[in-house]
Amino acid sequence: MDRQQLFDQIRAKRSFLCVGLDTDIKKIPAGLFKGKDSPVFTFNKAIIDATADLCVAYKPNMAFYESRGKEGIADFERTVAYIRTHYPEQFIIADAKRGDIGNTSAMYAEYFFGSVKVDAVTVAPYMGEDSVAPFLGYPERWAIVLALTSNKGAEDFQLTTDAEGERLFEKVLRRSQRWATADEMMYVVGATQGRLLADVRRLAPDHFILVPGIGVQGGSLEEVTHYGMNKWCGLLVNSSRAILYADNTVSFSAVARQAASKVQQEMTACLVAKDLL
Amino acid sequence: MDRQQLFDQIRAKRSFLCVGLDTDIKKIPAGLFKGKDSPVFTFNKAIIDATADLCVAYKPNMAFYESRGKEGIADFERTVAYIRTHYPEQFIIADAKRGDIGNTSAMYAEYFFGSVKVDAVTVAPYMGEDSVAPFLGYPERWAIVLALTSNKGAEDFQLTTDAEGERLFEKVLRRSQRWATADEMMYVVGATQGRLLADVRRLAPDHFILVPGIGVQGGSLEEVTHYGMNKWCGLLVNSSRAILYADNTVSFSAVARQAASKVQQEMTACLVAKDLL
Repeated sequence: MDRQQLFDQIRAKRSFLCVGLDTDIKKIPAGLFKGKDSPVFTFNKAIIDATADLCVAYKPNMAFYESRGKEGIADFERTVAYIRTHYPEQFIIADAKRGDIGNTSAMYAEYFFGSVKVDAVTVAPYMGEDSVAPFLGYPERWAIVLALTSNKGAEDFQLTTDAEGERLFEKVLRRSQRWATADEMMYVVGATQGRLLADVRRLAPDHFILVPGIGVQGGSLEEVTHYGMNKWCGLLVNSSRAILYADNTVSFSAVARQAASKVQQEMTACLVAKDLL
Repeated sequence: MDRQQLFDQIRAKRSFLCVGLDTDIKKIPAGLFKGKDSPVFTFNKAIIDATADLCVAYKPNMAFYESRGKEGIADFERTVAYIRTHYPEQFIIADAKRGDIGNTSAMYAEYFFGSVKVDAVTVAPYMGEDSVAPFLGYPERWAIVLALTSNKGAEDFQLTTDAEGERLFEKVLRRSQRWATADEMMYVVGATQGRLLADVRRLAPDHFILVPGIGVQGGSLEEVTHYGMNKWCGLLVNSSRAILYADNTVSFSAVARQAASKVQQEMTACLVAKDLL
């Protein structure tokens, strides 16, 4: 999916919501899936069917699948295939935070883009250009580079300042733009970073930004929109736990839909306020 | 395995070799495994049987397994189980370069340490303390933090200097020592970094260092030993492609053994020269 198509989807859905499929087998309503083949996939399917008209992207976090070995991987692949078949307009992000030497990153890229065929993979920048480059060059696929993350540990290194006064996340934003354009690269910036999003936008005015951290992590949609929205919206705001685990009874998917719908309505208001609808 | 046991193994084997199981299904001698169940596992088994008395560690790189989906994961898990059963003295490193927000890193840690039961996992430091912490606290298991990697992209961020003249890899070395001791944390430093290993040792004199990058990537064992060895050896030097793909005929495992044996003999000489044998 290219940037224009993503923006078109955002306008059509009146939403820039990404639903994080961080599906923890210990947290799904266990009784409902007893004896079922692939409870995690079955749960995902219900969540997807309940939310697909309210969001533009799904983001399975690989940890939740890999932690269950080959069965988890099967659930991940089935989930992606299900979205692709039934909701082909959705943008699918494998939240993998990968990064290794070139020939190794190439193996990851080939799996995610060549084999599973997600639209985007999150990548860690610590190892520099040749660790990210293998994720580029797949037409209409995207590398989403960690810039400024939503967790407390972001302060440890990302906010440190170099001799010229540049913070590490700014260096990542600036330097990575030598590697790829805003049509093949996005950035991760946590919702909890608040007005630092304005500093991100100074360096990356045109890029899409994947924003985790609203909901359980405490970030504010209003602040994210205020500092981060650009003329193509430029935001994919993720919510995981607040939607997936909104309820743990037989009504879980209906309540998940209510939670997603509430966010979507707030997003519609943001898009209207910014004259994008 | 604790630090003393690892050093004991190094003395017993007269080797600090780690064999990287970066097993690429496209590079293994295909004809030999035609029609076989799990060709990658079968190849690994042959390599392990041929080298286990010459090395102290095995390091499967996850990209080579994950890139093949659930079958690859099954090969990874079978490989670890095989080493555990037949060569319980070996130190097993999952080269995964993981790092995510706390609750997500915890899922990865539980998989690798709780379920598969490897001894160590490589982790990326970009997201800071809470992304690494979940890999700590498993008794006799290790987090191996990326400090200064072997690839060209290491220059992009790891070598940048802050306002006080400290380079990012030095900040990682210094700050991460607040999180864990040399009995639960190691570092990755590429063999291609040469004398920068001396700078690493100034900040981390006691830690074990995992050193990739000899062989195909061009690092020198002599230089690594000169700048990096400490009184517990303190080095695990990895070789992957130069051993795995030393030959691609029916003799592949015998030739792999020769390649490993050559490195092991050089390592014995290094240990003797440093009075550790």
